[in-house]
Order: sequence, then structure tokens, then C-alpha cells
Amino acid sequence: MTAPTRILVVGAGLIGTSVGLALADRVDVLLDDASPEHLAEAVHRRAGRPWVPGTAVDLVLACVPPAAVPAVVEASTRLQPEAIVSHVASRQAHIQAEIETAVGARAERVCGGHPLAGRERGGPAAARADLFDGRPWAVCPGERSSRRSVDAVRALAAMCGAEPVELAPEEHDDAVALVSHLPHVAASAVAAQLLTGDATRVAALAGPGLHDTTRVAAGDPALWLDILTGNARRVGPRVAAVAQSLSALAAALETLAEDAADESARAVVAKALADGNAGRARVPLKGRAARRDLVAVVVAVPDRPGQLAGALACAAAAGVNVEDVRVEHLSGRPRGLLELLVDRSSVDAAKQALAGDGWHVVGP
Amino acid sequence: MTAPTRILVVGAGLIGTSVGLALADRVDVLLDDASPEHLAEAVHRRAGRPWVPGTAVDLVLACVPPAAVPAVVEASTRLQPEAIVSHVASRQAHIQAEIETAVGARAERVCGGHPLAGRERGGPAAARADLFDGRPWAVCPGERSSRRSVDAVRALAAMCGAEPVELAPEEHDDAVALVSHLPHVAASAVAAQLLTGDATRVAALAGPGLHDTTRVAAGDPALWLDILTGNARRVGPRVAAVAQSLSALAAALETLAEDAADESARAVVAKALADGNAGRARVPLKGRAARRDLVAVVVAVPDRPGQLAGALACAAAAGVNVEDVRVEHLSGRPRGLLELLVDRSSVDAAKQALAGDGWHVVGP
Repeated sequence: MTAPTRILVVGAGLIGTSVGLALADRVDVLLDDASPEHLAEAVHRRAGRPWVPGTAVDLVLACVPPAAVPAVVEASTRLQPEAIVSHVASRQAHIQAEIETAVGARAERVCGGHPLAGRERGGPAAARADLFDGRPWAVCPGERSSRRSVDAVRALAAMCGAEPVELAPEEHDDAVALVSHLPHVAASAVAAQLLTGDATRVAALAGPGLHDTTRVAAGDPALWLDILTGNARRVGPRVAAVAQSLSALAAALETLAEDAADESARAVVAKALADGNAGRARVPLKGRAARRDLVAVVVAVPDRPGQLAGALACAAAAGVNVEDVRVEHLSGRPRGLLELLVDRSSVDAAKQALAGDGWHVVGP
Repeated sequence: MTAPTRILVVGAGLIGTSVGLALADRVDVLLDDASPEHLAEAVHRRAGRPWVPGTAVDLVLACVPPAAVPAVVEASTRLQPEAIVSHVASRQAHIQAEIETAVGARAERVCGGHPLAGRERGGPAAARADLFDGRPWAVCPGERSSRRSVDAVRALAAMCGAEPVELAPEEHDDAVALVSHLPHVAASAVAAQLLTGDATRVAALAGPGLHDTTRVAAGDPALWLDILTGNARRVGPRVAAVAQSLSALAAALETLAEDAADESARAVVAKALADGNAGRARVPLKGRAARRDLVAVVVAVPDRPGQLAGALACAAAAGVNVEDVRVEHLSGRPRGLLELLVDRSSVDAAKQALAGDGWHVVGP
């Protein structure tokens, strides 16, 4: 067995129900939840069928809150003596240690996991079959996990549409501190500065930079208190390092306010900016941002029904494949800008077709 | 005169040439630049005609680097005794003071301005007629600026498609420190942390949060060294405040790493998250994010030519207006997800039409 054919999902919340929806047409999915309402909703949405005690499965996936994971994993390894057991906790190292203590030799059949996907809302009603599509799914074997258990979790992740990324529990916790927890904390600190002063006047000058930089600060504070507390040992030093570099930068700016030519202060600011540049270059681009061969053709359109479809139909009729689209509705104006992303080789054909059809192509 | 009918743009770079392109069909635009190549390029792009010395204009707009602004403004007020004179510098208070010293009573005809728009590339070749569409244009009168000069700059901004926002030079500099300079510095500090450790393994777990939070850190370091130095007196205290709150947060996390139940440490983290939430709520939403009445209808499509146009044509045929579109190409998979944003009242009609036409509508 590599790919499981019958699985038990314990916990029919957002993640568990989404796993069921993603797999239900190919795998026999059994569902269990302490809440009869959640279970009924997940079954109603065809994420699987209610678990019948005693049914043997290939794999048990514990989709319960982190604190409940060790107990569910322990019971599952005991009650399902042949099954691989995994979970989806957002932290791995501490939970893996607790699991190993609880299950002893049965740790061979356990391998942790963490799909990096979520939504603003929780619960089975928010679940989606495509929740994991294209997202990383960390697969985190403990030292005693068998190859068979690791491969089963990898297969499960791939069957859900995710990209399995294998790394040790400690590596996982270090990585999420950096790619998720630190950005959240920094965004919150920047956003909190907006609570000072006259927000209305300030907001009038806000642009996409502030918008993007603070977006994640809108996350649920109670959930994030749990997440940060659970990974405090790894997030703390990262936050301290950023605090220290910002503190040095603030001191340099104070010097520059008095003497804009101060060489050592300029060097501090220049290095911070250059490091930021270099670090940003390590952030993987996804989606259309990764397609450097795409070029935007911009069309000014009246802001009324059917324009988007009309412009795309025009491009399609000319044999141009539009890879992506962005619409900008100009505030308070009866027109908008339509940005069609096409392959570099199709730019001229797209512009000619659109202009020939009476569309107003703008820009160089 | 409120709306100018003949203007002189000094400096045919990105901003100056874009102003010319935005106005050229309604206003007589004269262009001047120290670089004959820039001037020729801007004229070639029909941003205006070359300035003929001695020609009287209604308004002079100095689109030169901040350091050159006071001299250009001084000469312009002297050589054009009837004209309103403005500029587009990213900082206002210090420059306004220099201008007042240089021009004396002529300050009555001067009013500063700053369009909050830009592109990754500079120069006249990167200019766009729509660069200012829907963007704020700060209008920053000095104490001696006449109402006539303020109104002329407001009119100019509006004619370029921007939204004039009137505020004092000091207010402007405070606001951009908060909405632009601080986010840049914070994004750089977070991105710089990615230079430590094994970036490949870390990057594999990166998602949209890291991507958005660090986006602005990709900005040109030389340009940003100038920007931060020019506003150091106002940015410094903001950066110091964030450094201090992150430092307190790091200490609280260190405590929580030892004792996850420590009440005072939990309170520090909880307050930081709640403040981040409240601050984020003050960031104005623009574009489609502001349209809370829009709902996404998601369609799974084969990743091949014409699918986007086909799905939109199907929706249009059913009388559904698609307000916006987002395409997600799933990495390494032969299909993608197409998100059509429609008015809440059209969701059912859109789903029925698409499903009836054989499209694969996903999600609840």
C-alpha cells in the first residue's frame, strides 16, 4: 500500500471536510467528529460517510486541534493496528515528541503532516475540494517513522492536489516561523501604528504598498495567539532579530535627520535595503508573477456589463490566448482599465485585434 | 483661471512624461529637459511639444529630482510672472521651506504636490497616460500659497485622473512616513531574515502571506536610501516604535516558550495581535477588495487557450456581469482555477449557466 484506498478522517472541520471532498470520488472516506452537527454537515456535503466503529482503514488522519492530536493519534494506532496515522497540526516538533512518548513502538506507523492552506472561515461549511490545490503539504517524519508511513502521507497529500514537501519536524517549525509567523507579527506591528494620529488623512494617501504589507494582520487574534504560543521558542528569536535590525535602522535615521551626509548612518540604511532586496529575491513567485514571459495589454473600457467578455472574445477570435486578466475599476469614474496578460509573442496580434475591433488600447 | 490650458513640464522623466500623456489631448503641453534624449523621447510619444523659451504658460510643473526642485521653482516664478508653479517631490516640508526662502513674495503663486503613483522603471519610455488614474495626488499648500494656486494644482491633479488630497506639507511627510516608508522598512527587515538558513527548504513552504508582506522590499535600494534620508526625521520615530513593540513581543514569546500559560506574556501577544487587527481595519480597501457585495464563482478549467473567453462569454450570454476575474494556474497541472467575481444577486444565475454549458463549477 502506498496510496490509501480507505481512510478515516477524525475531525470534520475545514481541513478534514476539505480532505474528504478532495478524495471522496477516489477513496472510501469515513468521517468522525465529536460534534454531530459538524459530522452531519460534512456527510451532507458528500465529504464521506459516517465512521462505523470497528471498520479497518489504511490511514487515519487526525484533523483536530493541536492539543488533541497526541491522544487521537495514540488511540488510532491502537484501534487500527494496520493503519498509517497522520495529522495536520500547524506545529510538529513538540507534538511528534508527545506522540512518541504515547505510542512507543507504534511510532513506526505515524508520520506528521501540515497542509499550508486555510481560509478566513472555519468549519465544514467553509470546506472546499480545491483547498489544497497547488499548496505545499509538509510531510514531517519522526525518527522512527517507517518509509511506508512517509510514502502514504506523501501519496495522500498528492491525491488532495497538494505538493508534498518532506522535512523534519524541527525544520518545519523553523520554516513556518520564518515564512508565516514572523510576517504575521511584523504586519501587525506596522498596522498598529495606524492607530496613532489622524487615520482619515493618512488613509487618503495609502496605496497598494501599505495594503499588501499589512494584509495578514487581519487574521483571527485568538487563533494567532495559539499559533505563536505553540511555536514561541522559534518565533521569538526571529522577532528579536527583526526588532534589533529595526532599532539600528531607527538610530541611523535619527543621525541622518541631523546630517543627511553621515556616511556610517547611510551605510546602515543602505545595507538594510540591500538585504531586503536580496531576501525578497528568495521568495518564490507563484501564479502569474512567475510568468516573466507574459506582457500586459491594457484596454480602457466603459465600466458596464459585458465589456470583459467582449474584449476576451475579440482576443480569442484573433487566436490570442489570454493567460490572465486584471480589472481596475477607477473610483468614481465611468470607465475602468482591463489588463490582459498574453505571451510576449502575441502582444502585437492582441493589440491589432483589439484596436481593429474599436477597443481603446492604452499605454506604450 | 482654475484649470490650466497651457502648461510647462520641466523634466520629461516618468512623472513628467506621464503628465504630458494624460493631458496632451486637452491642454497645450510644453516640455523641457536637461537631457535632449529624454525630451526627444517624450515628444516622440506625443506627451507635448518642446518648450520655446519666452512662451508664457498658466502653470509650471517641476518634475525634477527633489534636490533640484527649489532652483527650478525659483527660476519659474521669476521667468513666468503670471504662472502658478508646482512640483511633484516625494517630500514636502523641507522643500517648501527652501522654496519660501528662495522666492520671497512669489511664494503666493507656488503650491507643492505629490502624485502617489510610480512604476518599477523610470524615464519617459515607461510613462503612461493612465499612471495617475484613481491614485491620490497630495496637494500641499505653504502658508503663503494663494487659493488660486491651490485650486490650479487640484485641477491639474484631477485632469490627470488622480484624486487631489489637500494637506499641509508637514502632514504629508508624516502620512507618507506611515503609509509608505515604514512599510518599506519593515518589509525589508522581514525579507532580510530569509538570508539566514536553508532558503530552498524554507521557500518550499512559503505562501501568499510571505509574498505580500515582503513585496515592496524589492524596490530600488538607491532610490529608497534617498527617500528615507529625505524623511528621516519622521520615519525614524515610527521605525523606533515598531522596533520597541517587536522587542516587547519577542520577550513575551521567550517567556511563553518556557511557560505557555504565563498570563502577562499572553496579554502582550494578544494586545499586539488585537492592535494589528484594529490598525489593519483602517487601511482603505481599493478595487475589488472594496466591493463586499461581490461573490466568487469558481470554475476548474483545462489550462489551454480560449477557456477564459469561453467562460466569460457563457456568463455574458446569461446576462451575468462579471466584475472581475482571477486566474490561478496550478503549478505542474494541466488545469487551473478561474474565479469570476459577480454581484451577489447573480451568483445562482452564473452557476446555472456555467454548469449548464458543461463548465466544472467547484466549491460550495
